[in-house]
Amino acid sequence: MSPVDVESESPARGRPRSADRTAAILDAAVEVMHEVGWEGFTVQAVANEAGAGLATIYRRWPTKEDLVADAMRHDIESTPLTGIDGTPREQLRELLVRFGDKMCGKGGSVISVFAAAKDHEAMREALDDVMRATVREVIRELVGEIIGADDPRAITITDSFIGVLIFRAGMLEIETPGEEFAAEMLALVDAVAD
Amino acid sequence: MSPVDVESESPARGRPRSADRTAAILDAAVEVMHEVGWEGFTVQAVANEAGAGLATIYRRWPTKEDLVADAMRHDIESTPLTGIDGTPREQLRELLVRFGDKMCGKGGSVISVFAAAKDHEAMREALDDVMRATVREVIRELVGEIIGADDPRAITITDSFIGVLIFRAGMLEIETPGEEFAAEMLALVDAVAD
Repeated sequence: MSPVDVESESPARGRPRSADRTAAILDAAVEVMHEVGWEGFTVQAVANEAGAGLATIYRRWPTKEDLVADAMRHDIESTPLTGIDGTPREQLRELLVRFGDKMCGKGGSVISVFAAAKDHEAMREALDDVMRATVREVIRELVGEIIGADDPRAITITDSFIGVLIFRAGMLEIETPGEEFAAEMLALVDAVAD
Repeated sequence: MSPVDVESESPARGRPRSADRTAAILDAAVEVMHEVGWEGFTVQAVANEAGAGLATIYRRWPTKEDLVADAMRHDIESTPLTGIDGTPREQLRELLVRFGDKMCGKGGSVISVFAAAKDHEAMREALDDVMRATVREVIRELVGEIIGADDPRAITITDSFIGVLIFRAGMLEIETPGEEFAAEMLALVDAVAD
């Protein structure tokens, strides 16, 4: 579901502008999602966290799935993927540090949301936008700049990065801090680039 | 939970031996698990599939979690990990073909079981036995024989193999047939071994 425009809702009388309230609600939804995953996620917890009314949230996101779907998009937007300075290798390194740190301690909840996405259309679309069309493409592009755009191993390496994070943090509950994760992954890229 | 010994249950009068019935029930549980994942899994479906009574199943596996946990172990035991002929590279290739084919079409259900394991002790233990102590160790050993046992990249490569399968089949619903998956992954190993 795309965000509905709620600018006209109630702009006056000193209440925060609705764009700010939207961001605050989505920030809260991301926080609840990271904390408890899909099973424990409730709209009430988001309302409490954001200091917003349930009615306000349901007016915009009719179901829990819609709210989680937009939270998934909001979450990735808060981790800038482009506009990083440096060589492709430096840019890739920085991205890997950010993703590694992002997944630290949140793997279990992230995987429960990914698993639930299979059964909920709005979440499946969000997962597809975020993982397939965004994260995977940005990383594949950078890896291609390093090892050669036509090298078929670029997609293998890309999926390895994402897969290692999901497997370790999400399933084994092994936390690899961003710096360490980036160094490990760049060792693979360097071996292929040589 | 370890399997309880049920040999003494009712060995006589032409009924199948209980070890056979146990195997038939676990085969059925694996099939149901692959088909519907965690959410849709019911003991009744397993009973139907195995032609067994509900009471027989519940006597041995008091909860759905216990049955799924043993099904996870049974599933991996049915994919032999050792005793494969050939050089370490040939053995690794064969294992990758088997795992690739195994996950084809089942990624979504597997990931839902992995995600649920987080909240259920018996399943978490089974996941740990199967993934961390078994699959991961066997692959790391073989990769170490190819690139050098002390090479720190052996564990990175190992987790890449498993992670790519989980990410693609489980999240993106991209099916990579075993032969293709093995070729892709061996290209990484070869780059590191060179």
